[in-house]
Amino acid sequence: MSALPTPVRAPEGAPSAADVHRTLERCRALVAPALRDAVAGTHPWVGEMAAYSFGWCEVGGAPSRSSGGKGVRQALAVLGAEASGAPGGAAVRGAVAVELVHAFSLLHDDIMDGDESRRRRPTVWKAYGTGPAVLAGDALFALAVETLADAGAPAMRLLSRALRDLVHGQADDLLFASRPWTGPERVRLREYRTMAEHKTGALLGCAVALGAALGGAPPATVAALDRAGRHLGVAFQAVDDVLGIWGDPAVTGKPVHGDLRERKKTFPVLAALDSPAAGRLSALLESSAAPSEIADLIDRAGGRTATLAEARHQAAAARAALDTVPLAPGPAAELRSLLDFVIRREQ
Amino acid sequence: MSALPTPVRAPEGAPSAADVHRTLERCRALVAPALRDAVAGTHPWVGEMAAYSFGWCEVGGAPSRSSGGKGVRQALAVLGAEASGAPGGAAVRGAVAVELVHAFSLLHDDIMDGDESRRRRPTVWKAYGTGPAVLAGDALFALAVETLADAGAPAMRLLSRALRDLVHGQADDLLFASRPWTGPERVRLREYRTMAEHKTGALLGCAVALGAALGGAPPATVAALDRAGRHLGVAFQAVDDVLGIWGDPAVTGKPVHGDLRERKKTFPVLAALDSPAAGRLSALLESSAAPSEIADLIDRAGGRTATLAEARHQAAAARAALDTVPLAPGPAAELRSLLDFVIRREQ
Repeated sequence: MSALPTPVRAPEGAPSAADVHRTLERCRALVAPALRDAVAGTHPWVGEMAAYSFGWCEVGGAPSRSSGGKGVRQALAVLGAEASGAPGGAAVRGAVAVELVHAFSLLHDDIMDGDESRRRRPTVWKAYGTGPAVLAGDALFALAVETLADAGAPAMRLLSRALRDLVHGQADDLLFASRPWTGPERVRLREYRTMAEHKTGALLGCAVALGAALGGAPPATVAALDRAGRHLGVAFQAVDDVLGIWGDPAVTGKPVHGDLRERKKTFPVLAALDSPAAGRLSALLESSAAPSEIADLIDRAGGRTATLAEARHQAAAARAALDTVPLAPGPAAELRSLLDFVIRREQ
Repeated sequence: MSALPTPVRAPEGAPSAADVHRTLERCRALVAPALRDAVAGTHPWVGEMAAYSFGWCEVGGAPSRSSGGKGVRQALAVLGAEASGAPGGAAVRGAVAVELVHAFSLLHDDIMDGDESRRRRPTVWKAYGTGPAVLAGDALFALAVETLADAGAPAMRLLSRALRDLVHGQADDLLFASRPWTGPERVRLREYRTMAEHKTGALLGCAVALGAALGGAPPATVAALDRAGRHLGVAFQAVDDVLGIWGDPAVTGKPVHGDLRERKKTFPVLAALDSPAAGRLSALLESSAAPSEIADLIDRAGGRTATLAEARHQAAAARAALDTVPLAPGPAAELRSLLDFVIRREQ
């Protein structure tokens, strides 16, 4: 088993993880009351499933010690407003909406992907049943729309574009599974990149752009922040793919070589299939070869290196997008730190 | 097997079914291009599932001879605008949104309820799998939001209120299944009425109110039309419940006594459980008694009569709501005919 990779090293003098955790906590404190209010307004049964998915309670409603998610999307929304010179409070309903959409998409994706655990707990469909989980996802989706119903057309357009992209990305991801490893029908890296932008980047871009839009930022700023979030999403996915093969299960909470056991078409695999090792690799992937053997071949064929290079390239593009528009220095620095943090994936 | 009931007889001199079919066809022709455009803009795989659910194609994409739905919701939206003095075209995006939401809710409800056929064809989850059907529903939901993103806050508020009510109604409907037939935890008629208003009435009310709002109607008109649609929904559900027990399978396309085979808690059953026959009826419902025997007892206990009275009462309330505001006479007459038609359920 390889050590946990550190794909994007923290630059000298960069803000520490503690600084980023302070940012995340500050934004969480600002958004949490509105998020809890939104969830409390839905049907009690559905509300319990939603609260469970946020890590607020266990099945039955007892308080949970689960950590929940990091709240990256709500923080991006708050920082988007602040970087545009508005108070973070201007972004709260946008932050609530993107956290609700994120929870909705995890909930439904877990059903579609058949994933039985998330953040070391049973997924909602596993804990409550498939039908109720479909309904809970729908409820979160509806709440997100309701939260932004009064926020004006630019905000609704950002949200609905992200929703469209999420669906598109999930559809492509599901369809990739049935395509061959080699030949003209194989999944190309650029298709994978587009899928990752849709499935992961669109909502990150929406979060920070929505914050800016609600903070009154001009369209050029909104668009630049959206682009930054989309690049961040692809970078995140690339790092996630490396961790899905070579990550330390004690840190990731996922089984070692999990993505290879499931024969997932991830970036490192697709990159290695573009190398001279493609023939040997596809034969291994179609055999019952041990995941460790496949992982080693992908590594030797340059799949890991190419994926980390992709993450660095996308992270640089995200930073470059932020450089194209004037932003308030303090929040912009926090935004950059959060961006680095998301890609480093420190726990 | 009893004959098909005619719960609400057509009044003397009332418009014929042919008139209503002309209205439905006129509205369908006005809305269809925008609805097809919206669906064409989504992911092709998801778009095929959506087209299948509308009855436009078969699995694989071949054109279908299926009739699809009647298009009542799109017609309500168009007539809502016209009754407010606007051209029907003003309502088109609202009509598209409510048809998309209706299709989304059928798609996900069929998963939750485990229903394997709809309009004499396999349901989407049965034809394409549960995961893909969840995604197709999400896509239709997202398209509905996108369709209205630019339509302004009043329209978005109407849509999001209907979405919230849909979720609420579906949650209650699912939970009713596990409640007892008798005792303090039994489902009361007023709870059932509220569930029906949420599950069926909210979107009918939203349709006609949205048409009026997009047509520039004052808030009082929008609210009155919303109320009319909600009463219509409860009336519709009551008639549906009668047909679900005593309807002619050749006309309804559903198995005889279907709702009783599944021991569904519908209005006629709940009304009969409020009668002195409650003890005998609950014993039958908990036994393996033949549905025909249960149906006869419900009828003798007054369940059918009470349900038809409920339908008439709700239909009258819908008409009364229309009488509270000034409406353009021609479209208002078409609206009243459509309302009678929906409750009579002529095929």
